[in-house]
Formats: sequence, structure tokens, C-alpha cells
Amino acid sequence: MEYRVKSMELAEQGKLKIEWAENHMPVLMLLRKKYSESKPLRGLRIGAVLHVTKETAVLMKALKDAGAEDVVLAASNPLSTQDDVAAALVEYGIRVYAWRGMSSEEYYWCINQVVRSNPDIVLDDGGDLHATIHREHLDLADKIIGGTEETTTGVIRLKALERDGLLKYPVIAVNNAYTKHLFDNRYGTGQSTFDGILRATNILIAGKVVVVAGYGWVGRGIAMRARGLGARRVIVTEVDPVRALEAVFDGFEVMPMIEAAKVGDIFITATGDKAVIRKEHMEKMKDGAILANAGHFNVEIWIPDLESLSAGKRLIRPNVTEYKLRDGRRIYLLAEGRLVNLVAAEGHPSEVMDMSFANQFLAVKYLYDNRGKLPPKVFNPPLELDERVARLKLESMNIEIDKLTKEQEEYLKSWTLGT
Amino acid sequence: MEYRVKSMELAEQGKLKIEWAENHMPVLMLLRKKYSESKPLRGLRIGAVLHVTKETAVLMKALKDAGAEDVVLAASNPLSTQDDVAAALVEYGIRVYAWRGMSSEEYYWCINQVVRSNPDIVLDDGGDLHATIHREHLDLADKIIGGTEETTTGVIRLKALERDGLLKYPVIAVNNAYTKHLFDNRYGTGQSTFDGILRATNILIAGKVVVVAGYGWVGRGIAMRARGLGARRVIVTEVDPVRALEAVFDGFEVMPMIEAAKVGDIFITATGDKAVIRKEHMEKMKDGAILANAGHFNVEIWIPDLESLSAGKRLIRPNVTEYKLRDGRRIYLLAEGRLVNLVAAEGHPSEVMDMSFANQFLAVKYLYDNRGKLPPKVFNPPLELDERVARLKLESMNIEIDKLTKEQEEYLKSWTLGT
Amino acid sequence: MEYRVKSMELAEQGKLKIEWAENHMPVLMLLRKKYSESKPLRGLRIGAVLHVTKETAVLMKALKDAGAEDVVLAASNPLSTQDDVAAALVEYGIRVYAWRGMSSEEYYWCINQVVRSNPDIVLDDGGDLHATIHREHLDLADKIIGGTEETTTGVIRLKALERDGLLKYPVIAVNNAYTKHLFDNRYGTGQSTFDGILRATNILIAGKVVVVAGYGWVGRGIAMRARGLGARRVIVTEVDPVRALEAVFDGFEVMPMIEAAKVGDIFITATGDKAVIRKEHMEKMKDGAILANAGHFNVEIWIPDLESLSAGKRLIRPNVTEYKLRDGRRIYLLAEGRLVNLVAAEGHPSEVMDMSFANQFLAVKYLYDNRGKLPPKVFNPPLELDERVARLKLESMNIEIDKLTKEQEEYLKSWTLGT
Amino acid sequence: MEYRVKSMELAEQGKLKIEWAENHMPVLMLLRKKYSESKPLRGLRIGAVLHVTKETAVLMKALKDAGAEDVVLAASNPLSTQDDVAAALVEYGIRVYAWRGMSSEEYYWCINQVVRSNPDIVLDDGGDLHATIHREHLDLADKIIGGTEETTTGVIRLKALERDGLLKYPVIAVNNAYTKHLFDNRYGTGQSTFDGILRATNILIAGKVVVVAGYGWVGRGIAMRARGLGARRVIVTEVDPVRALEAVFDGFEVMPMIEAAKVGDIFITATGDKAVIRKEHMEKMKDGAILANAGHFNVEIWIPDLESLSAGKRLIRPNVTEYKLRDGRRIYLLAEGRLVNLVAAEGHPSEVMDMSFANQFLAVKYLYDNRGKLPPKVFNPPLELDERVARLKLESMNIEIDKLTKEQEEYLKSWTLGT
Repeated sequence: MEYRVKSMELAEQGKLKIEWAENHMPVLMLLRKKYSESKPLRGLRIGAVLHVTKETAVLMKALKDAGAEDVVLAASNPLSTQDDVAAALVEYGIRVYAWRGMSSEEYYWCINQVVRSNPDIVLDDGGDLHATIHREHLDLADKIIGGTEETTTGVIRLKALERDGLLKYPVIAVNNAYTKHLFDNRYGTGQSTFDGILRATNILIAGKVVVVAGYGWVGRGIAMRARGLGARRVIVTEVDPVRALEAVFDGFEVMPMIEAAKVGDIFITATGDKAVIRKEHMEKMKDGAILANAGHFNVEIWIPDLESLSAGKRLIRPNVTEYKLRDGRRIYLLAEGRLVNLVAAEGHPSEVMDMSFANQFLAVKYLYDNRGKLPPKVFNPPLELDERVARLKLESMNIEIDKLTKEQEEYLKSWTLGT
Repeated sequence: MEYRVKSMELAEQGKLKIEWAENHMPVLMLLRKKYSESKPLRGLRIGAVLHVTKETAVLMKALKDAGAEDVVLAASNPLSTQDDVAAALVEYGIRVYAWRGMSSEEYYWCINQVVRSNPDIVLDDGGDLHATIHREHLDLADKIIGGTEETTTGVIRLKALERDGLLKYPVIAVNNAYTKHLFDNRYGTGQSTFDGILRATNILIAGKVVVVAGYGWVGRGIAMRARGLGARRVIVTEVDPVRALEAVFDGFEVMPMIEAAKVGDIFITATGDKAVIRKEHMEKMKDGAILANAGHFNVEIWIPDLESLSAGKRLIRPNVTEYKLRDGRRIYLLAEGRLVNLVAAEGHPSEVMDMSFANQFLAVKYLYDNRGKLPPKVFNPPLELDERVARLKLESMNIEIDKLTKEQEEYLKSWTLGT
Repeated sequence: MEYRVKSMELAEQGKLKIEWAENHMPVLMLLRKKYSESKPLRGLRIGAVLHVTKETAVLMKALKDAGAEDVVLAASNPLSTQDDVAAALVEYGIRVYAWRGMSSEEYYWCINQVVRSNPDIVLDDGGDLHATIHREHLDLADKIIGGTEETTTGVIRLKALERDGLLKYPVIAVNNAYTKHLFDNRYGTGQSTFDGILRATNILIAGKVVVVAGYGWVGRGIAMRARGLGARRVIVTEVDPVRALEAVFDGFEVMPMIEAAKVGDIFITATGDKAVIRKEHMEKMKDGAILANAGHFNVEIWIPDLESLSAGKRLIRPNVTEYKLRDGRRIYLLAEGRLVNLVAAEGHPSEVMDMSFANQFLAVKYLYDNRGKLPPKVFNPPLELDERVARLKLESMNIEIDKLTKEQEEYLKSWTLGT
Repeated sequence: MEYRVKSMELAEQGKLKIEWAENHMPVLMLLRKKYSESKPLRGLRIGAVLHVTKETAVLMKALKDAGAEDVVLAASNPLSTQDDVAAALVEYGIRVYAWRGMSSEEYYWCINQVVRSNPDIVLDDGGDLHATIHREHLDLADKIIGGTEETTTGVIRLKALERDGLLKYPVIAVNNAYTKHLFDNRYGTGQSTFDGILRATNILIAGKVVVVAGYGWVGRGIAMRARGLGARRVIVTEVDPVRALEAVFDGFEVMPMIEAAKVGDIFITATGDKAVIRKEHMEKMKDGAILANAGHFNVEIWIPDLESLSAGKRLIRPNVTEYKLRDGRRIYLLAEGRLVNLVAAEGHPSEVMDMSFANQFLAVKYLYDNRGKLPPKVFNPPLELDERVARLKLESMNIEIDKLTKEQEEYLKSWTLGT
């Protein structure tokens, strides 16, 4: 079996981590248990580019247990791999190509290993796998039954591909499942972003001025937790007027980044766009400002600008790079501008990945069950899968909800009943 | 000029109220100012069934100033009319048929006055006007250019009408504008519901167990404010598993109403459905429980059940009816189960109605501008109107936001740029 | 029986109000029930200057039922009297001198009626009764067994009196009971201040910039609720550096009033000091700024400065005076600068007054039980009374708490047990 | 120079850590700068038992720079030492006796090294140093000028010593400085406790039921952050009725631990007492319950009971011990029941320790300046030191506050000015 990981000696530690994750992923575990008997994925070849974390491991195991023949996994970020988990997965028969701290070349070499495994279904996080296939392996694309995409960023890229008429296979935008983006993006990133910031810096959030760029689901999760941790001011920057207004009415300050730059203590980007924090902003920042990114790619904080303004840099703490600016000010960049929650902490907690990956699992099964029937488009996940995930999650938490009575159902269907 | 209001002597007081509202509705005032010159609604006959409040008055004046020939207004709830505002509107040339405390017969008589005025465009809040036209005046329906609908409840009814193939004219679901339902339903109702409860009862929310039925936009606004006012426990009941799960992760307890009934101090319904609180729940409630409704119709708390359980009732405070149950417990019903924010307080603050009614105004203009071009369906408001309202609102608050740079726009359109 | 109220015809309505309060004051009701049998206050003459509200009525009745011979009550603020409650109290045999909207002369005339009734024990709210006795009736002071004081403001005045060596009888600073100031000042005023502001203005708090002057218990209650109602920014002004720092770490902005004046939408004073908002601040305010006071006296917003800056004024809504400044800006003063919660709403909810007045009741009993034994000083309430009130309140809410085990008690007493 | 640390090779890494702390401790750095010139502690011998963290290092350096002749430091907890910081301190000339993971015997051996250095002034955290001196070295006690104590727990022990008439030297209860306990205990522990829990477990707080034992300053900080991180229910247990009631009105549930045990997902103790979670509670807990302690000693969760109920245990993650109960349930104990913030994370953020240790520094100087003048009692820190720390902190954050005008000062002193 081919694979490449840091060290197989880490496997035992990785297994414990995975066991811990399994304890906190009841929905996925229930699906795994159910389908490990019926094996609905029998014979399927799966290629995945995902963050190699303990939660991803639980998904990989579930796919394998459901009958998948070959499961090949590469990392979706050069810095996010948990090497012990990678090793443990190899022991479980997953072909992993991932280690923390890979170069950009190595990163794409690994993705290419996934492509070359001739997968029937491809799972992606951020769109680099889909882009690689469409750019360099169009011959293989035709044989692909379908794909999934985990992130907002990846969905935006796939929609661009679809709009340009180039998309070659159906893709389920798992990100668009309610039980994914309403939870993982918001509560998952909200908490884990601060987990990463605290592990990296150990600073006190209370009393600080926190600037959040972007008020999508990720941004609002971060803003909510900044408030919850006692920030003195939480400032949101946006380009969309409706979202900006929502931030205002949610109790946050809204202003352009050029104004926020002057007063912020901590800046967190979550826009999915490039150069959201750039030279003009860095020039206004206070000595000691801290920059972190929660978006998929390390382009939101424009590092070339930071480099060009600086006289020197050093690693003052793990994941904290001190840039000494020529005017004497110091700016601290966390996790090299990559996803701070995955690099400086462990990524999303298992409890939210439980839902995200239950959606992934069900999406794979749906694509396989409907193979040949779906046109090459970007689909939202079927609502019934979403509801199923939600119901299973509630059950796992011992939470019951109400049911509509017959009278109530009828009432909702009627247009004649009024005052 | 024909009209019917409580007393024209109240007009002066009503005018002051309207002036106060105008001070807090900058977007609508700006539109009014702009279109009172170009008069784009010249010649238009408008029939409206809306809550007759100071904010509605500002909308009515704006429509009139924009050239509308005849504006006829009836109340959309028997208990929500502000009589002084009604009188003032008459002085401004609006033909009002509304007074607080009308009977059900009078209520429909007033709606019929609106229909009989031969309106070109009809504005509705809750769907009683649309239902009346489709039930009793199908002859007039054909001449109607289009309509609007303000509420979730009304939109549900109109969709039922559309689904049954009976809808006779295009309707813009103003409720579905982001700048309407994200704000008015959530922040407006959230605050004004508690404003109504406090005026009615003067109880302390801190330390109380508050039960919110429904976790739509209205319900989540109420739950958020219950938390913000210090409730000891905020319990949400739901029938939708995704919403239920969202409530859980938002930090609320979720349980079936039959369990919540045992522990709640205050119950607030916001479901749009009937009999959400019924006999089986009332039987479990604590002595002193308080029931309030924030949904459109007074059907959510099933009053016949309350009556049947009771040995007697009395009005212990304005808008607080004490039901003495046969087993000795007392249950307090606020505002006769009608919209507590409109009956016991003044409805939504002007600041949110500013956006809702700017959307109404623009929807009327859109229907008129596009007359003859739209099929008889329920439409969402055009996104550009939504954005325009948001931008005007931000400007009125002196809040600036960022703009995408060219590089950022391109980045968002590209699928090739990745790690 | 001598008394003076607005109209005895309001008594029935007042009785209903008092009944409602009784339903929400379980601790005081329990004490009333217990001591209406043993009558420990038999023969006692009580003079009180308190806000004449439904909650005060429950206290007055409890004192009377416990055996007090004569209970005389005047208002502690010219605008805070609930006339129907005053009338009802007269029917219950309390000699009330109070009506809403009295002049300053009438106000002191009423206080003098209380003094002239030769009270044995005097209850005060704000210190005007104690000051009147010490200023004008020193002959009567010697016969007074003791007094109580309800507010922070009054306690400050009494401490000044004590420091000057002039205090003539022992006073229990009821305000200093934990079960009083931690609850009534914070949760009571926090909620009721916004209740008053909303009734007066019907504005939306979400999106607003709220400035709170003073971060004592009252101020922090207000700041907490401003946050809870969705204010975009909550700014605190302080003179005490420790409190200022606490506000910062509680997640609020702190700045001098002269800076806050430029950005605030709503200003609320809670300092106990005079001229906290004065000319220099008013000159900086935005058009439309709203001023409200939550402190005891109407001196915190310096009205003479507002008058001197204005070209005219008018009452635009009940309790909202519009000052038109000479430069065209408009500033809105609520409730004439008096306690906005008592003038524009109903004062503290019964649930907190339950504890405050249980403390008052127990303080009166304590003074009577210990008559002749206490020197003329300002005392904090005995801790055991405080604990008793807390335990009764918890019981009334069906809340149980833990008890220390013997081992735990011993552990806490030991200094030898360590790592 | 005598000392004992893990490895001097860690010194460079420790120095970077200390530099990072210095960047976030502006008040202490300012005092250090000022007194490194005047050297007011010249000749003083200082013995300290504190958590050996980067923040403590900044204090040690400040004392040394202010002229202290000999500074000897031992750890105040066997598991809380940061070995790299310990090594760096040795390089700075501080005699450190501390390493992470010491046995109980080693722990006391280190404390005895401090005592044997013949310190003039002793700094303690938890009271083990003071207790050791009073138990075993009474001969040395007479020569001690005074001591300080950092924690609530230590102050309780010292008061017991004082009450028993045994205290031998004056002790300043630094914990009782407002700028210490209101900040460090509340915001510091509140955040760092969850930092420790997240690093240990990586679980999602949103949706969880968190039980906080104790509602002192530490407990309320933890409860506040549990809420802020989205916990579904935050349950407080207390023995003090006033605090319990405060928790209720702060919006938390209160119940006895025996009830909370059934529903909690995460239990955090912060009482300062022993066996707060014991057998009877563990027997009721859900499978998977997580136990963490934020109190000074590892006695709050009674580990012998956990051991006796268990069939086995293993370390499933760093700082997470899985106890497998005989009935199959699993309970997870974090950090062996020791201070979770110090063992699993880095302890309080520098920003709060800045104030706590500025108070320590000023207390040492005060004791030295007043040597021979203070009786052997437990003192609160002088108010003027507290205010000084607060003002310096505000300045370091560029926050200005108001000053009383002369009129305002006079007003506050007067008892005659009223309505």
C-alpha cells in the first residue's frame, strides 16, 4: 500500500485522538455502524483532499467501513495536518499523503497522488482538488461520478467553473447544507479561531478591540465569540450593505478597514477574498497589533505587504511571527496567515464536524446511488438529508422537539383562515 | 371624503406622534422627499390594510406625496389601531377606516371599504385583504395591478393561494426582503414584544423562565432579548429539527411544549400556527403563568381551551386578563392573545419600520412601473431594491463600509487561484 | 383620618394594582403573614417618605398588619406617585400625602405632614425626610427611635451628616443590604430604566450608541441591559479608576463625557452627582440626542444649561420634551430629568422591591426590637437579616442550594491543610 | 548560586516567553523602570512561592531590578511550572527551585529552600509557604518583616491563623486589592479556565451543559465565559444564599450539585473547599462527563472517590484521564484535578497578572517602607495603591476618564442639598 506520512511511530497516539473524536461524533458513528453492515459503497474508489485531523479520520473510516474499496487522502492545507492522525489512518488502511509543514510543491504532489488513484468520487475542501482535475487531468474528469465541496471558498470557485461552462461532473456543495454552514462555519470556527489565537498568544480578550473582516457565517461566529470573551469593542468590516447593517443591529460597530486599522488590537479575516488587510491598513496599525486569518487561503492578510514594510522578523512564540516595521512598530502574524484554528489549535471541535461529515458521508452515498443521473452542476444537498442529520444530532443530545398536529398542518396549508 | 375613525379631536396628538416617527425613519423620508417632486405614482389608487400606527402614517403620506390619487387604509388587526394617528391621517387626506377595539364584523366591514375603493395596488399585512378579494370580489381582482404583503403569515397564505392556482395578480412578498425580515421580524419584534409585556405586567424578566414557541426570525429575536434582559432560562420549542438545533447551539434549551409548560413563567408564541399552546399545556402550567402572543393572528394561544378550563376571569391590569382555573391556578393572558407588541405597546420602533416601509414604497413603485409585465405569482423583492434600502440606512447612520478592489473582484470570479 | 391624594375614586384601580404586586412579592407577603399574627410592631408610629407605588403599598400594609399604630406616607419624588395606589392606601388606613405632579412647595409640605405625625421610626428614600428633620425639627429628632434609608444617594447624605457629628438617631442603610443594592439597583433599575425610555420614546435600542454615566450598581445594570437590548456601542463614563477599569474589562468602552457627547444617541445618568451632563457636553451632541436620568435627583442632567442653550421647547410625546437649540439641533429630555423609570414607567418591578422592602420591614423591626440600644450612627443591615431575605426569596422560586458538609466546614477553618 | 530547575538549555525559549509577557504587562514594566533607578528595595531578601510562569518572571525581575539582594523562588503547585521560564530566571540571577511534575516531597523540599534563604519578605500563593513557616520554622518567623498572599484560598488560611492568634508577621492580602480580585480572579480565570479545557479536550462549548461550583469572583468569571462561548445551560451551585440569588438574577440556573450532576456535560469547581464533587455526585453523572478544577488546591474534585468507583484509568489525551467506572460509564478528569488553567494552558494572561503583580510589587515596597510599624495581622492593600494601579492600567490602554468638578465634589459632601 502506497502512502506518505511523517512517521508511523505516531500511529498509537493518533488512534487515541481518533477514539476521542469518535466519542464526540455520534451522528457519523451511527451512520458508520448502520452502513458497515449493508456496505452501500462497495467497490467505490474515493479520493479526498481534506484537513487531516482526527475528525476527518472518523469520516475516512466510515467511508471505508461502508464498503469503499480505495480511500486516498491528501491534506487541504500545508500546515493543518495532524501527523499522528495521518499515521493512524494508514494503519486503518487509508492511503494518506500528508504531513505538517509541507512545501507548496509537495502539497500539489500529494493532491496529484489522489487524482492518479482514479477516484470515482472526489471530496474537496477549498477546491484545490477540483481545480487540479479541471486544469490538468481533464481526461480523468469524465470518469468521475461526482464530487463534494466542504467550504464556502470552494463553492465560490466551483460556481465560477460552472458559470464558465467547464464543470465536468456533478458536485454537491456540502457547505450549503444547513446542518453544515449554520453550525460548522459559525460555532465551529467561532470557537476554534479563538482557541488558536489563545494557544498562540495567551493574551486576554477582555478589554481588547477586535476587528473582524467579513460578516458571513464564519465572521459572525467570530464576532459573537469575541463579544462572549469580553472584547471591549468588536468592529466588523464588510462590503455587503445588508450584512453590514445586520452587524450593526447585532450590536457591533461597522466601519471601513482603513478606520478599524487605527484602533484594533486583534484583526481576524474571514472574507474568502484576497488582500483584505494590506499595506495601507498595516501602515495605520498600533504597535503590537495581532493579525490572524480564519479564511480558507492565506491570502486575506497580504503577507508581501507586511514583508515589504518590515526591517526584520522572528518567531517569538510558536505560531507567532514578530514583524519589526521600519518605523519601529511591531506587528504579530499568527500561523503564517493560514487558518489559525487549524494551524495553532486542532481545528473545529468534533461536535460540529460530526454534522459536516455526516453530510459528506450522505452526499457521497447520494452521488453513488444516483450515479449517471445528475448533470455536471453544483447542487445543494437534498433537504431530507439535512433534516436527517439534524434529527440524529438532536437525538444524540437527548433533545426532543414538537410535532405538528393535523390541525396545525392543515392550518398552514390554508389561505382562507384569517382574523 | 369618506372615512371612519374614533375621533377627529385626536388629530393634533396624532400629528406629533407622526412627526416623532418621521424623525426616526430617515430612509423613507428621503424617498418621500425625492419622489414628492417627480410624482411617479401619479394617478394611482392605493388600498391598504395595515396596522394603523405612526409608522404606517409615514408610509401613507409618502405614497400620497409621490402622486397617489386615492389612498384608503383599514386596520389589519382589531386592537392595534392608534386612534390619534388615524385621525391625523384623515387630516392629511388619507381615507382611514380604523379604530381600536373594533368587532370582527366591523373589522371586515372596514376591509370591504378598502376593496370597494377600486384600488390599483393593494398593500396587506397578514393576508386578510388578499383573501377577502379572492373570496368575495374576484371581479375586482382582475383590475388590480398588483399587491404587496408584509408578513410571514400573509406570505404563507399567498403561497397556498398560488399553489392552488387561484392567485389573480402579482404580489411582492415584502416580508422576504432581507432589509425587512432580518430586521423588523428579529430586532423589531424582539424588542417590542418585551416592551408590550413590560407595559402590561411590569414584571422583572431577570430570574424568570421564558418559553419561546417558534425559532423563526421573530422567535429568535424574542429569545435573544429574553436572554439580554436576564432570563434565568430561555426555552425554545420548535417542530423543525434544523431550527431546533440552531437554537441549541445559540445557547438556548429546546424541549417539547408539554415539558416547557411545567417550568415556564412567561410563554411567548411566534409560530404562525394555531393552538401552539392548548389545553394539554395549560393543564401543566404553574400558578401565575403569563401567556403572550407575538404571531400575526390570535390563534396561537388557543383561548377556547383557556376558557373551558376556567371558572372565571377578570381584567386585573390593562391588557392582562386573569383566568382563574377550576383547580385554583391562575393564568394571565396578555392582550387577549393578539400581537402583544401592537396591543400593549406601540408596535415596532420606527427605526425598523423605516426599512420595512421603504421596501413597501419601492415595491409599490416597482409594481406600477412594471404594470402589465408581471404574471400572477408571489415574487421576492428585487435584490437591488434591498441593497438600496440597506445603503440608505447605513448612510443615515453615518456608517461607511468597504468596497471591493478590482483585484478582489477578480479573485472572487476566478476558480484557478488556490493554495 | 387626615390625608391628601388626587382622587379617592381611583382606589379600586389602585387595589387591583396592589394585588398584582402582592402576587410578585412572596418574601414580603410571607413576613406580613407571619407578623400579622404576633404583631411585633404594636403601638409603633411610622413616618415614611417613599415613592408611592404599588410595591410601597405592600410594605405599608405589611407594617400596618404587623401592628403599627399610625402609618403616614409622603412621596419621595414630585413625579413618581401612582395616584390610584395612593387612594387605595388611604382605604387601607394609611395616611397618604402624595399626588403626581406636585410642586416643590407641596412636596415639602407633604414631608412636613409626615414629620408632624410624631413618628417613632422614619423610612426615607433619598434623604429628604432625614434632612428635613435635622434641619427644621431637631426637637422631634430626639424622640425618634431610628430610621432607614433606601438609596445610595440618601446613604451618602446621611454619612455626611454623621461625619459632621449631627446625626440624631440610628439609621439602617437598607440600601447596603446585599439583597437590596445587588438586586434592586442593578437588575431593577437596569430593566425599568429602559422600560421608561421605551414607553417615553418607542425607539429601537439595537443599533444605537448608549452612553451610561456612572458605573456603580445602577450604572452597571443599565449598561448590561443596553448591551442586552442590542446597542451598537455602550459607552461608560466614570471618575473612579477602578470602576472605569472594571467597565473596560466587562466589555464596555470608557471615555470622558466630553468625547462620549459627540457620538451618543441616548445618554443615561446614574452617578448620584450633579451636572454630569452640562453645557459643554450639550454643545457637542448630535441632533436628536436623548437624555434620561436614573439617579435619585433631577440634578444629573443640568437643565438650566439646556434651557440657556435653547430657543424653545415643547412636549412632543408624554415625558419627552423637545429642546430646540439655537443652532437648530434638537435635544430630547425625558421625564424632566427625573427618575425615568418611575416617571415614565412604573419603577422597579415588584420582584426586586420584594427584597428591598423585606429588608425595610426587617430593619424597622430590628430598630424597634433594639430601641435605646443603638447609638446615632449609620449602620449596615445585620448580615443574618440579609441571608434570611435571600433564603426566603430562593424558596419562593423553588430553588434549592447546597449545604456545607462538616468536613467542608472544618476545611475552611483550617490553615494547616494545603497541597 | 544555588538553584534547581529542569534544564538550563530551555533558557533561551524562556527568555522569549518573558519578553512576550513584558510586552503585555505595561504597569509592572513602568514600575520596574521607575524603581530600577531609585532601588528602593536595596538589600532586601525576598522569598517567593508562586506559580513559575512568564508573568511571575516579570515580577521577579522587577523586584531584583529594584534592588533586592536575594530573590528565591519555588513553585506554588507541582504541575504549574513552565520549565523554560524557570531556566531563564536562573540566568537573570533568580534562585529558582521548581520544575513541572515534582512529587509532593519535592514540592515541600523546594519551599524549604525558600525558607532557609532567610527571607525578609515572603510572597505566597495559596498559603503553603506561610503555613510551612508557622508550622516548622517559627524561629525564622520573627525575623520576617512581612508577607503577601495572592489567593482567596491563602487569605482564608491566613485569617484562620490570625484568628487562632498564631500569625507572626504582617501580611498584605494582595488578593483583596480591587485591581487584583475583580480582574485576575474573574476575567483571568474565566478565560484561562476555558483555554485549559479547550487545549485539553478540543470539545465544543456551544450546546453543552456547564456546571460551575461556586459563584465567587472566580466562579462568576467562569460562568460568564461559559455563557459567552455558547453553553446551552450554565448551572451554578452555591452554599451562600445571597450569591446563589445573584447567580439566578445574572441569568444562570441554580440547583444543588446532586441535581446538576445528572445533567452536566462539563463540571468546573471554584469554591476553595474540598470534596465539592464527590462519590454521590459521580454516581449520577452521564457517560462522558468532564471534570475540571479552577480552585487553588486539587481537593475540590475528590479523586479518591473517583478512584474507588473505577475499574481502570488511562491517559487518553494530554491532561485528560479517562476513568472507566465499574458500571461502564466514563468520566474524564482534566489536569489531575489541579488548576486546569495553569496545568493545561499557561495560566492567566499577562494583561491581568500585570495588575496582580503590580499590587505584589507595591505591597512588598509598602511592607519594606513600613517595616517595624505594622502589627502581625492580615491587611488589605492600601486603597491609594489600588487606585494607582488602576490609573496606570488605564493610561497604558490610552483610556481617559472624567474628573469631578469642584461643584460636584462639594455636592457629594453635602447633606442639605435635596429635591
